[in-house]
Amino acid sequence: MPDRIEAVAGGITAAQGVLAAGVHCGIKRDRPDLALIVSETTATVAGTFTRNRVKAAPVQLCLQRIGRGRFSALVVNSGNANCCTGKAGLRNADAMARRAAEVLDRPPGEVFVASTGVIGKPLPMDAVGRGIRKAALRLGRTGGVDAARAILTTDTGPKEAAAAFAVGGRRVTVGGMAKGAGMIAPDMATMLCFLATDARVPAPLLRVALRRAVDGSFNRITVDGDTSTNDTTLCFATGSSGASLAPGRKGWPEFTEALGQVTRALARMIVRDGEGATKLVEVRVRRARSAAAARRAAVTVANSLLVKTALHAEDMNWGRIMAALGRAGVVQGPDRIGIELEDVAVVRKGVGLGPEAEARAHERMRQPEFALTIDLGAGRGQDAVWTCDLSAEYVRINAEYRS
Amino acid sequence: MPDRIEAVAGGITAAQGVLAAGVHCGIKRDRPDLALIVSETTATVAGTFTRNRVKAAPVQLCLQRIGRGRFSALVVNSGNANCCTGKAGLRNADAMARRAAEVLDRPPGEVFVASTGVIGKPLPMDAVGRGIRKAALRLGRTGGVDAARAILTTDTGPKEAAAAFAVGGRRVTVGGMAKGAGMIAPDMATMLCFLATDARVPAPLLRVALRRAVDGSFNRITVDGDTSTNDTTLCFATGSSGASLAPGRKGWPEFTEALGQVTRALARMIVRDGEGATKLVEVRVRRARSAAAARRAAVTVANSLLVKTALHAEDMNWGRIMAALGRAGVVQGPDRIGIELEDVAVVRKGVGLGPEAEARAHERMRQPEFALTIDLGAGRGQDAVWTCDLSAEYVRINAEYRS
Repeated sequence: MPDRIEAVAGGITAAQGVLAAGVHCGIKRDRPDLALIVSETTATVAGTFTRNRVKAAPVQLCLQRIGRGRFSALVVNSGNANCCTGKAGLRNADAMARRAAEVLDRPPGEVFVASTGVIGKPLPMDAVGRGIRKAALRLGRTGGVDAARAILTTDTGPKEAAAAFAVGGRRVTVGGMAKGAGMIAPDMATMLCFLATDARVPAPLLRVALRRAVDGSFNRITVDGDTSTNDTTLCFATGSSGASLAPGRKGWPEFTEALGQVTRALARMIVRDGEGATKLVEVRVRRARSAAAARRAAVTVANSLLVKTALHAEDMNWGRIMAALGRAGVVQGPDRIGIELEDVAVVRKGVGLGPEAEARAHERMRQPEFALTIDLGAGRGQDAVWTCDLSAEYVRINAEYRS
Repeated sequence: MPDRIEAVAGGITAAQGVLAAGVHCGIKRDRPDLALIVSETTATVAGTFTRNRVKAAPVQLCLQRIGRGRFSALVVNSGNANCCTGKAGLRNADAMARRAAEVLDRPPGEVFVASTGVIGKPLPMDAVGRGIRKAALRLGRTGGVDAARAILTTDTGPKEAAAAFAVGGRRVTVGGMAKGAGMIAPDMATMLCFLATDARVPAPLLRVALRRAVDGSFNRITVDGDTSTNDTTLCFATGSSGASLAPGRKGWPEFTEALGQVTRALARMIVRDGEGATKLVEVRVRRARSAAAARRAAVTVANSLLVKTALHAEDMNWGRIMAALGRAGVVQGPDRIGIELEDVAVVRKGVGLGPEAEARAHERMRQPEFALTIDLGAGRGQDAVWTCDLSAEYVRINAEYRS
């Protein structure tokens, strides 16, 4: 079935019925900082949001609206997170949505908002209002990439992906954009992702599909519960393709797979663009006691600073991996652990296979992408997460972010 | 009572009945790498060890012996952790102890061992044997500092502290040394600490006193359970002062306080010497729902990479603190949170007090040591931990460690 899904060019506006624009309104000095995304129809919508107890005002607003499942438009600004801004922050998030609703002549309750950037500063509402008017004039079917640029903070470039398939003579597309570059640890940065499809999908079903896709993608690059104040994923379905999808009907497996492909592609782009990162590493754990134990082991290794600095140095320092596994609490001892870097075994039954094996592993680590496989020899649980290396550049970026 | 305790010069050999030496035996290229510490009497001993499930061979050996509570000597090597070295590693740890027992003519079961350095390489036993013989010839009452130098890895210098007090006309001294410089996150490096007192203290009581001291010091710079494969704290009591101490008797409060002072001093030295660190920061949390909630909040903030890079930049980026508190799961929302940097309030009821307050806080952050106080406004729980900033130098050190 996956071979019936085709990766296509573009991002969110690859889906029919989606208009977008990205502009500079003055929240940042000289880079695009406001995106407007509009559904030509009244779309259905689903979302997932940060589990951080400190939730930014735009997240609170989205949480109030998402249950109704109706979507007309989305305004996103970068450069200011509108978080820890008190009641004024909530009023500003609401005003941001209302301003867009007025300009677009759509119901305010169907307009969503998202923000990313510095915490604790009031949102400059004059700039935001100006940006919404400016963006509304530029809305277009090819505006996805401008919108994708306007939501970035420390990212080095826009992140877009799209996939399409045919069902009953109609062509269905899923497109999306994401933002997020801090991946050194799960608390590193806001992750925003906006997805659209031109299928018609009832909101409750869209919710099921989105949760599954997010679990297989963005939740593979962060630890459960360790999230920023602003993390937001929204997916809306315009229905403009004319194809109605639901579980048990034709096209549903293709739809969930296309959504999975788009979200996985975006998640990998986030890791690859990790602040100061030079490597994309898939940490695979197999033969754990359970899938949960595998996940925990993979996440602990993937987040270990000592492992990440060794990845940066292209050093097969497997002792640091063993130490991380030991504190993950999922092994009784090192005796059954095996470690492979791509096709090179470096540890078997808890003991290193020597300098030659490490040297061969080092050769593989010179690639920009590789897999690290850990065999716990304890059961049938398996899982995988994506991580990146930690460079001195990461520290420079994060020490200078506000300066 | 604390004013009756006097900080004194020196380290472990400040306590009567303790001999020590530190030598170079060839595990490292050109720096001291083996320490020998001997009690002139058969001492009592207590220890705390890593909770990491992957335990180095020397830790396994100590765990077997500590229950008997008898101590004659301790051999420590740096440059090689003797961890993930299989059964050969356990044999080597045992041989290391036996070699010292032979040379010193003491019972092998009373000799303890510790190792720190690279994981997964066989311990070079010829060098270790040579080192033990060489060190035995140099044992002396002033050898503490040489021993303290020989246990270092990435530390910039030896860490020693001692304190003394009088009880019933006798002078009792507690002295110690520590090693550990990776403090960026709790999994960052092996922490070794060796303590001696010339009081006579039965092993079970020494255990109680040591646990309390470790909880107030080294456990304040790491997260419970997040430990390296080799972490070891040993405290032995020679009895050479002639003073017998026990709870309820004169001198016991002074003893526990002296042990607390020495371990706190060593713990702070470890943080201050954190790899690439330029700041020592005390993170205090007050008015939490419980002491445990306060601890969790303090630890989460203290380990946040975004907070640590902001500390390095001397940037009062309190939004990163709020985000860390949010994911610590100990607040319902930001509304009651207050944040102070030394005497400067920067957040009240979850809202920032503006650029002037942040500028004043920035001035305080230019100092090498300062306190960050977080008020959760939720209850009466409080706690504090020590942390350091994160610099690009940290990454350089850890990316190059094996090269």
